[in-house]
Amino acid sequence: MIKIIERKAQDATASLQRSIETGTKEQRQAVWDIIEQVKANGDRALFQLTHQFDGVQLDTLNVSEEEIQEAYKFVDEETVETFKQAITNIVQFHEKQKRESWMYSNPNGTKLGMKLRPLQRVGLYVPGGTAALLSSVLMTAIPAQVAGVQQLVLTTPPSKTGKVAPTVLVAADLLGIREIYSVGGAQAIAALAYGTETIKGVDKIVGPGNIYVALAKREVFGTVDIDMIAGPSEIVVLADEQQNPAYIAADLLSQAEHDVLASAICVTTSKELAQDVQAELVKQVQKLPRREIALKALEQHGAIYVTETLEEALDIVNQLAPEHLELMVEEPFELLDSIHHAGAVFLGEYSSEPVGDYFAGPNHVLPTNGSARFSSPLNVDDFMKKSSIIAYSKQDLMENADKIMRIARFEELEGHAQAIQIRLEQSSKD
Amino acid sequence: MIKIIERKAQDATASLQRSIETGTKEQRQAVWDIIEQVKANGDRALFQLTHQFDGVQLDTLNVSEEEIQEAYKFVDEETVETFKQAITNIVQFHEKQKRESWMYSNPNGTKLGMKLRPLQRVGLYVPGGTAALLSSVLMTAIPAQVAGVQQLVLTTPPSKTGKVAPTVLVAADLLGIREIYSVGGAQAIAALAYGTETIKGVDKIVGPGNIYVALAKREVFGTVDIDMIAGPSEIVVLADEQQNPAYIAADLLSQAEHDVLASAICVTTSKELAQDVQAELVKQVQKLPRREIALKALEQHGAIYVTETLEEALDIVNQLAPEHLELMVEEPFELLDSIHHAGAVFLGEYSSEPVGDYFAGPNHVLPTNGSARFSSPLNVDDFMKKSSIIAYSKQDLMENADKIMRIARFEELEGHAQAIQIRLEQSSKD
Repeated sequence: MIKIIERKAQDATASLQRSIETGTKEQRQAVWDIIEQVKANGDRALFQLTHQFDGVQLDTLNVSEEEIQEAYKFVDEETVETFKQAITNIVQFHEKQKRESWMYSNPNGTKLGMKLRPLQRVGLYVPGGTAALLSSVLMTAIPAQVAGVQQLVLTTPPSKTGKVAPTVLVAADLLGIREIYSVGGAQAIAALAYGTETIKGVDKIVGPGNIYVALAKREVFGTVDIDMIAGPSEIVVLADEQQNPAYIAADLLSQAEHDVLASAICVTTSKELAQDVQAELVKQVQKLPRREIALKALEQHGAIYVTETLEEALDIVNQLAPEHLELMVEEPFELLDSIHHAGAVFLGEYSSEPVGDYFAGPNHVLPTNGSARFSSPLNVDDFMKKSSIIAYSKQDLMENADKIMRIARFEELEGHAQAIQIRLEQSSKD
Repeated sequence: MIKIIERKAQDATASLQRSIETGTKEQRQAVWDIIEQVKANGDRALFQLTHQFDGVQLDTLNVSEEEIQEAYKFVDEETVETFKQAITNIVQFHEKQKRESWMYSNPNGTKLGMKLRPLQRVGLYVPGGTAALLSSVLMTAIPAQVAGVQQLVLTTPPSKTGKVAPTVLVAADLLGIREIYSVGGAQAIAALAYGTETIKGVDKIVGPGNIYVALAKREVFGTVDIDMIAGPSEIVVLADEQQNPAYIAADLLSQAEHDVLASAICVTTSKELAQDVQAELVKQVQKLPRREIALKALEQHGAIYVTETLEEALDIVNQLAPEHLELMVEEPFELLDSIHHAGAVFLGEYSSEPVGDYFAGPNHVLPTNGSARFSSPLNVDDFMKKSSIIAYSKQDLMENADKIMRIARFEELEGHAQAIQIRLEQSSKD
């Protein structure tokens, strides 16, 4: 069961942090080979690799309209309605992230600014296998759609019967995504990056996947953009002594049940609360169908830290830079400025983490494994690009020519200086 | 000399696009080995590798205050003043990029939002060797400083005498950067990513470098964030028949002189202008100290495209997705919406590209090699991270509990449903 650890902030993360997956030498070589095959042989390589890895010989990569309509058999009507409500909430939240182009003028008539535009074509990778795919499609596709991305392409691996997961198709259909390909793994990433006869290359690839998908994304990064490489899920609950241990335990379990590598951590100043949470975990875990997974996760990557002061507790939180952080304290908003790194912060006892997973509106694609130090929840900015706008006036060029040429010549780039010089000479004749 | 090509947009890029540098197998292996050495041996590895690659045995990695003050001998006072003016302009432009955290409430009392914060610690890599480093330091450091990054660390390789480039030190000093280490190459990137005894690890690494630096950045991506992998410089000038061919030629040369791999392209609907630009290039290139480089670049990666229509010309521009785009046309602002991809757009005949390189304010670190399709000029957002804020109200939890549980159970995550269920049961007792 989960351990209780009484200590100060030092080394809090050492035992818990998992290293970034960079794969074995063999995995990296395999991914490189797959990419080379797809670059060289296009569709033919995709069919071959799908046969090899997914065990099915396809005769088309396209998912048909019929297959999409059939998928609705697997999702009852009330669930579809609930997902539609979730879509409304997610769209509403992401609409607030939209930003406008801007420009300003100076007294000399120069205009400077930035123009923002959506990416043109984005590929959504959706892994096969698990049930939790529908909300995953919503969370990756909606920010792109809100950004204004016109071409959103989805790829997902076929099962042995040649069909793709119906939940994925329902999600795609609810969002109006029509371009869907039945291909998975590193070969799908290569196809999205470099294009094949059937699949036109994209500008950015987003979505989770196994180690081969992650390595392939890392490999094509630069040719196209990618989102972050996602690691196992994490929750940290920072709790004071007034909190309900049953809520805390339930929230810890909601992450622990994801994956044996998931990490569920409580940090508190109350020894008593720590013991109560531990007891609740023992009790509640028994009710879960996925208790084996949850137990293993709690044992391996779980902990309850008891600190003497709130400052020490906050220090541990900031060291962990958690994907999900719950502030289960009397005045959670007062602590917000002390949190330096967190993917999503849940404030107060009713902000249970699963609220954010599906329904409230914010994105559930969040930085894991300490990467909240430098990255952000998936958001609309991730699907937009900027261009600088420079409209320099004649007056500004004349006034500043000497300075610009001075810097150019200091940097030993005479051609740069000449581009200014020639305007000085020729425009004075105007 | 540069070729004139009369054709439609099809395949315009095929002959010009250079592939993204992914290095040879040997280079990748070398970089991997260097990173492993630094991870295993820390400072000791840095001293060894600096001896091996830079040919100097250092006894400290720290650059002293004395060395910084001495650096001013190499930059005359008027140049320092000009750089100070450039800093003012760059800061002013980047201040406009700053964004605020936001939050909204719904009628049920739920609060949702995003909190924006600067990254805590950023590493700036500055390569050795060329003169054009001072403005490069300004352009990479200022967006970080405007974002509010508190710890900005600079690493740059020592020369054989053990000193680092004085221009880099002057730039750092003008910006108040005090933490400077004398180490370069893949070993510097490894040190910044993983930390050593002397160099504390950072959250993000930015700045240009050779193939080893680029490969190392790609390798540590995920452990830390990185900026884009930069390629050779590019300019595309879109010109109508009214334009001054001398200006166009001068601007093409200002990019061509950078590097034999640089690409300088003019796209025009006027055959006559094309010929005039070609003639101007022949004339002007002779005046340049770096004419050998410029000529080779023009021959290998230069072209003047003559199209029949403006639409075809715009198509070529969008296919190229250039780093720098000059709109040398009568009404440049009218074309802006037709430009889908460009790092920086220079409008009108006085917006010569070097204006943007040093002085106007916008950043000169721009997406190269077609990556303007999906990436942006270096900007303040690159040094900030976001956290989602979710403060769900009791009323919203009660009203939406069924829906949240329905989705959780549909995704076969009973623990997620239980975290909601337990609040329903226990809070109704309140």
